[in-house]
Amino acid sequence: MCELLGMSANVPTDICFSFAGLMQRGGKTGNHSDGWGIAFYEKRGLREFKDPFPSYRSEIARLVRNYPIKSHVVISHIRKANAGKVCLENTHPFTRELWGQYWTFAHNGQLKGIKKRTLRHYFPVGSTDSEHAFCWIMDQLREKFPNKPRHYGSVYQQLHQLSEELRSQGVFNMLMSDSRHLFSYCSTKLSWITRKAPFEKATLKDDEFTIDFEKETTPDDIVTVIATEPLTDNEQWHKLAAGDMVVFTKGTLTKTLRPR
Amino acid sequence: MCELLGMSANVPTDICFSFAGLMQRGGKTGNHSDGWGIAFYEKRGLREFKDPFPSYRSEIARLVRNYPIKSHVVISHIRKANAGKVCLENTHPFTRELWGQYWTFAHNGQLKGIKKRTLRHYFPVGSTDSEHAFCWIMDQLREKFPNKPRHYGSVYQQLHQLSEELRSQGVFNMLMSDSRHLFSYCSTKLSWITRKAPFEKATLKDDEFTIDFEKETTPDDIVTVIATEPLTDNEQWHKLAAGDMVVFTKGTLTKTLRPR
Repeated sequence: MCELLGMSANVPTDICFSFAGLMQRGGKTGNHSDGWGIAFYEKRGLREFKDPFPSYRSEIARLVRNYPIKSHVVISHIRKANAGKVCLENTHPFTRELWGQYWTFAHNGQLKGIKKRTLRHYFPVGSTDSEHAFCWIMDQLREKFPNKPRHYGSVYQQLHQLSEELRSQGVFNMLMSDSRHLFSYCSTKLSWITRKAPFEKATLKDDEFTIDFEKETTPDDIVTVIATEPLTDNEQWHKLAAGDMVVFTKGTLTKTLRPR
Repeated sequence: MCELLGMSANVPTDICFSFAGLMQRGGKTGNHSDGWGIAFYEKRGLREFKDPFPSYRSEIARLVRNYPIKSHVVISHIRKANAGKVCLENTHPFTRELWGQYWTFAHNGQLKGIKKRTLRHYFPVGSTDSEHAFCWIMDQLREKFPNKPRHYGSVYQQLHQLSEELRSQGVFNMLMSDSRHLFSYCSTKLSWITRKAPFEKATLKDDEFTIDFEKETTPDDIVTVIATEPLTDNEQWHKLAAGDMVVFTKGTLTKTLRPR
């Protein structure tokens, strides 16, 4: 199994604290040692860091941990290879462009027979079931909405429906973003927390690291973090149920979609 | 004007030496201070580093300079903004997927009226003329070759023809790759050099830095570097003429296309 980490914030925020916890699971406190990746949105722009090596001893992961990159949406993944060999092209997150926006995707789980699903517009570069699933979602979105719809609610619905369809083929926990929204779909496990004023201290489970968010933030900041498992042990995280999709915009929960 | 740097090699090679020269031009020995980016291919996989800040004082550029990332195709760019504001989404190189391959593109020059060219499949995320030109090239390639052609020679021809068309609208020096080939088209300036055994010493123009390639390489290595201006002052670089396109594969010049 892999680990997912996402963030949505109303002001450009760094994810050093949460990433510090996650990267320990990449071969140290966890066995997810087959690569890691992180995508940062800065407005419409996107930057990504990836390595097909364990995150806990990666030079690049160290840079990401120590150098505060401020972003309003982040998606990160550390990998335990199940389908597809260990190499850069199989490392999450994956990115494609639709409607002049970069879409990013990371997945935890396995999907049986996913490669039988026909693709028309987007094709995988690597050999993972995850990238195939992502290309299929993007294909379906593009077929249904050749142009960006005015009312984005129909996009939420479509994404939830596609995720439900994929869940029927195995395990499909995923994080996805179009640069503005953070879409999070739970098949077996995903937990989230929204931090806002009054801020308190938080202690990482995976590293000897405590942070006093009051010192790091302003009273107006709203920051949501979502992960496969809670990253701190002194805060209350919300656990998603199977089939739930939550949408965060600027750090705030804006929509919850449940299975029918 | 911006600066371009590309590399093609038959074995995974780091570009630290050439990049050290280029990054000095990003706000120190040159005035290209509006961001920089570099894309490394590792087989089919791609990793990119970008910053909308001057490269000579970028933390991330320092990592790229000091941490040898081994790659067989590299495309890099430092930017002096002419069209489009300074932000991450306007930072080269740009990437899109076609035929299950990542295509990367960086451009030096300006193109008048480029945004009047209609796009169908690929759309720019930022506001530069360069990204629009790239999306148009990808669109045209996709229209002509919905599937990857068996004989790639027709792709070379098409890319040269499209580049010629763009040159009629302004200045179009560009580097492009599909992960295997390095395509380099010259509108006003591009120079290249192939280094192979017997290797000699090289001295950077822009930094106090000499390298003895014999110590850094094996006798079978073939490495081509291409740049807007020669990066060393004690070696003989080949200067491309206006309208020339050269294709490098595994470090070797495999095709030259000239204007009709």
